Amino acid sequence: MTENTPYQQLTRTFQRLSRFSHLAAIAGWDMFAMMPPGGSVARGEALAELGVLQHQILTDKKVGQWLQEARQQDLNDVEQANLREMQRQYDQAALLPESLVEAKSLAGSRCEHAWRSQRPANDWTGFADNLREVVRLSRQEAQIRADARGGSRYDALLDIFEPDMTSARLDSLFADLKSWLPSLLSQAVEKQAKQTLIAPQGPFPIAEQRELGLQAMRILGFDFDGGRLDISAHPFCGGVPQDVRITTRYNENDLLSALFGVIHETGHARYEQNLPRPWVDQPVGLARSTAIHESQSLFFEMQLGRSERFLNRLLPAVRERFGDRPAFSQDNFVAWNQQVKPGFIRVDADEVSYPAHVILRYEIERALIDGEIEVDDIPSLWDEKMQHWLGLSTTGNYRDGCMQDIHWTDGGFGYFPSYTLGAMYAAQLMAAARRALPTLDRDIEEGDFSALFDWLRQNIWQHGSRFTTSQLIQQATGEDLNSRYFREHLTTRYL
Amino acid sequence: MTENTPYQQLTRTFQRLSRFSHLAAIAGWDMFAMMPPGGSVARGEALAELGVLQHQILTDKKVGQWLQEARQQDLNDVEQANLREMQRQYDQAALLPESLVEAKSLAGSRCEHAWRSQRPANDWTGFADNLREVVRLSRQEAQIRADARGGSRYDALLDIFEPDMTSARLDSLFADLKSWLPSLLSQAVEKQAKQTLIAPQGPFPIAEQRELGLQAMRILGFDFDGGRLDISAHPFCGGVPQDVRITTRYNENDLLSALFGVIHETGHARYEQNLPRPWVDQPVGLARSTAIHESQSLFFEMQLGRSERFLNRLLPAVRERFGDRPAFSQDNFVAWNQQVKPGFIRVDADEVSYPAHVILRYEIERALIDGEIEVDDIPSLWDEKMQHWLGLSTTGNYRDGCMQDIHWTDGGFGYFPSYTLGAMYAAQLMAAARRALPTLDRDIEEGDFSALFDWLRQNIWQHGSRFTTSQLIQQATGEDLNSRYFREHLTTRYL
Repeated sequence: MTENTPYQQLTRTFQRLSRFSHLAAIAGWDMFAMMPPGGSVARGEALAELGVLQHQILTDKKVGQWLQEARQQDLNDVEQANLREMQRQYDQAALLPESLVEAKSLAGSRCEHAWRSQRPANDWTGFADNLREVVRLSRQEAQIRADARGGSRYDALLDIFEPDMTSARLDSLFADLKSWLPSLLSQAVEKQAKQTLIAPQGPFPIAEQRELGLQAMRILGFDFDGGRLDISAHPFCGGVPQDVRITTRYNENDLLSALFGVIHETGHARYEQNLPRPWVDQPVGLARSTAIHESQSLFFEMQLGRSERFLNRLLPAVRERFGDRPAFSQDNFVAWNQQVKPGFIRVDADEVSYPAHVILRYEIERALIDGEIEVDDIPSLWDEKMQHWLGLSTTGNYRDGCMQDIHWTDGGFGYFPSYTLGAMYAAQLMAAARRALPTLDRDIEEGDFSALFDWLRQNIWQHGSRFTTSQLIQQATGEDLNSRYFREHLTTRYL
Repeated sequence: MTENTPYQQLTRTFQRLSRFSHLAAIAGWDMFAMMPPGGSVARGEALAELGVLQHQILTDKKVGQWLQEARQQDLNDVEQANLREMQRQYDQAALLPESLVEAKSLAGSRCEHAWRSQRPANDWTGFADNLREVVRLSRQEAQIRADARGGSRYDALLDIFEPDMTSARLDSLFADLKSWLPSLLSQAVEKQAKQTLIAPQGPFPIAEQRELGLQAMRILGFDFDGGRLDISAHPFCGGVPQDVRITTRYNENDLLSALFGVIHETGHARYEQNLPRPWVDQPVGLARSTAIHESQSLFFEMQLGRSERFLNRLLPAVRERFGDRPAFSQDNFVAWNQQVKPGFIRVDADEVSYPAHVILRYEIERALIDGEIEVDDIPSLWDEKMQHWLGLSTTGNYRDGCMQDIHWTDGGFGYFPSYTLGAMYAAQLMAAARRALPTLDRDIEEGDFSALFDWLRQNIWQHGSRFTTSQLIQQATGEDLNSRYFREHLTTRYL
């Protein structure tokens, strides 16, 4: 009788949790893509009730006991990795007193809800009042986590999103970026100043944009038997590996924003769709981390999608739907999609100026959590860093400055670095793929991405959370994360 | 301290159950309206896991204790009604051994799944093998329920869908129908034989059909702030009162099938949307029964929707979208929507021949559950009754005969009567509304349904499950359910 070993009790418990997460994921997708406004209160209550249940199941004392006992069992590699991920989930959940979880959730909802009207009203004073409480509780959480694992408060929050990553390592990676990115950015801007571009003029009917997006998804190998494309205010990738839901948003006058939203989310989706099916209901079967997830979407959007070769492959489909116009000449279309334009808004940023937005936020949120600055210091710091990086002043313009993002409103400190880590991982992976696949560039030119996707499947997707992020990246690329390939990529594309 | 009275413990428990039901309802809607096929196994597992949880919460011994103790409390009318409905849910769930629930669910899934291909293949022998097991387990369930509540086995199953209803009462109601319906049916057919109708010729673009459906929903008062219209293989009304999801199916060559599907489901939806909000998460806030639910959809579809006055109001919208053609003349449009055409298929039946389909199934399923006949007797009985009622032979044609419905495949015995009870309730309610609202016919002619909907809200919708079905109908119409008004309605419309 091995049916009731501690490890088997654990897999059954995490299978239950996975099934409940399935319902939360679909109800969550529905909330953003389908739900009429009148359903929001009841939906919020239903999801909160499920969240309480999941927390109770995960932090049950029996789970703690089984985790201890299972360490004595004879487990194979995958089972050991699964146990490690189970322990991680358990520790993260069990550490916090329920009162803090509840207080943080309430303060976060209040701050986020008020922010929705405070941002358009440019009301920093009102926002700061709520944010102070969110920061206070996030510091408490960070302290508890730091006490348990060692390291700084900020590192403890960073670890939630990006295991293995520390602020020391981030500082080093970002110091490198800071040494060459500003000059690369100004060179790229200067170079592009000479070009005259023709803007693609709308209207581009939404039904046609949707068809083009679906076509791009097919080209990129999205499995429609296990997923859908819909609409939401902010593009996202949700659902479950067996049924991935991606969304985009359409603007009749902007063809490319919806399309590249789709391409970006398709990168997330293919990762999810190719996670290891035998472990699909276990922690070891989940995606590795937020930065690795982002590396896949940026791989699809930036490394592949905005490359000259891919854009040329995409053009016939664009012309077929929207006419053969000067804006859709090869040269103009590629240049239009590779513009470098420093601006206030992170989500609209090109890939060269994007890291500036991230490093700025990282430096501020780390200092904030570690207690080196207070909420009131944010606007002037923001302004100073925007001036330094992008030559833009945000004085008094909170809405396009430190109030533009949703992340801090509900205490998501530690998340922002994932975006730039993802961009660096994506470049490093593409360089490794290019080394492994000598005909890659010709394949892309000919529209054959199968070898590239096989490489991603072999090296990233199929492993789920079996390896740590460092192991995963070392195995895939032969080295630790570094910014060399990102720099090479930006240099090649923009200089 | 009254915070922890047994009654309050119960309301909290049923609130939890309601929130989990919310998730089940949305995931269920998604399954039929949105989900790609690859998601089905994981979705089935997730919903089954939730079902097990809900069953455990509901049948917890503490719930039984609280129910007993709460009876000693000083409760107001609504609370007492809530307690009655809680007790009913508890008894229905706690009565069955889990092994039987599981065996029935497995046999039902197997039979239903195989039926999907057996029906098109006309494979009665294969189907009967599975159905025998479903019937065996349904008889076991019925016996356990009958032992607990008294009455026959079939009555025990009927009670699940239609509290207060017995087969003795059904026999009496249906005996009355049987005394006049066959002659009414043949007279209607004979009368219509003289008319020459122009069929509305497609194609009717689906996007336009959808817009027309939305327009009908607006006319009929559907609250789009708390609901949606989508597509599924079989039209249904799902979701939750705060967020009602209705569906229809489109056929480019059949304008009216989708439209009247929408009108029918809008009747269900308005009932749900107008259930009492203060009790929305408690059993007393749920719809009264399947027959009362069906009475609302048939009220919208048959009493109102297919009436000459309503059809005339609808015509301008139809002509605006699909042209002013001879098929859309007032006379032809009304006559086309009021055709009486006896046929094999229940779901395609007009309202005059529909009761024949129901009574036939009721008589067979009652005899089957009570042990008077066996599965092998079904085809000849079916044929005999179809010959008798509609003059149609189904010998050897199982797919259009006794294999056409999904209900028996997973053991839904006792449901079929709801359809005809609903039609009778609908006619009785319309007669009462007409007595209460002297200007009703003129209002409908002028497209003003507000008084009618207010009457339904006052008399049916707002009460949820506060009253028994008999009380509800007596209060609304001044008498018990009887078939007089259904007969008058059919006579007026068709003879």
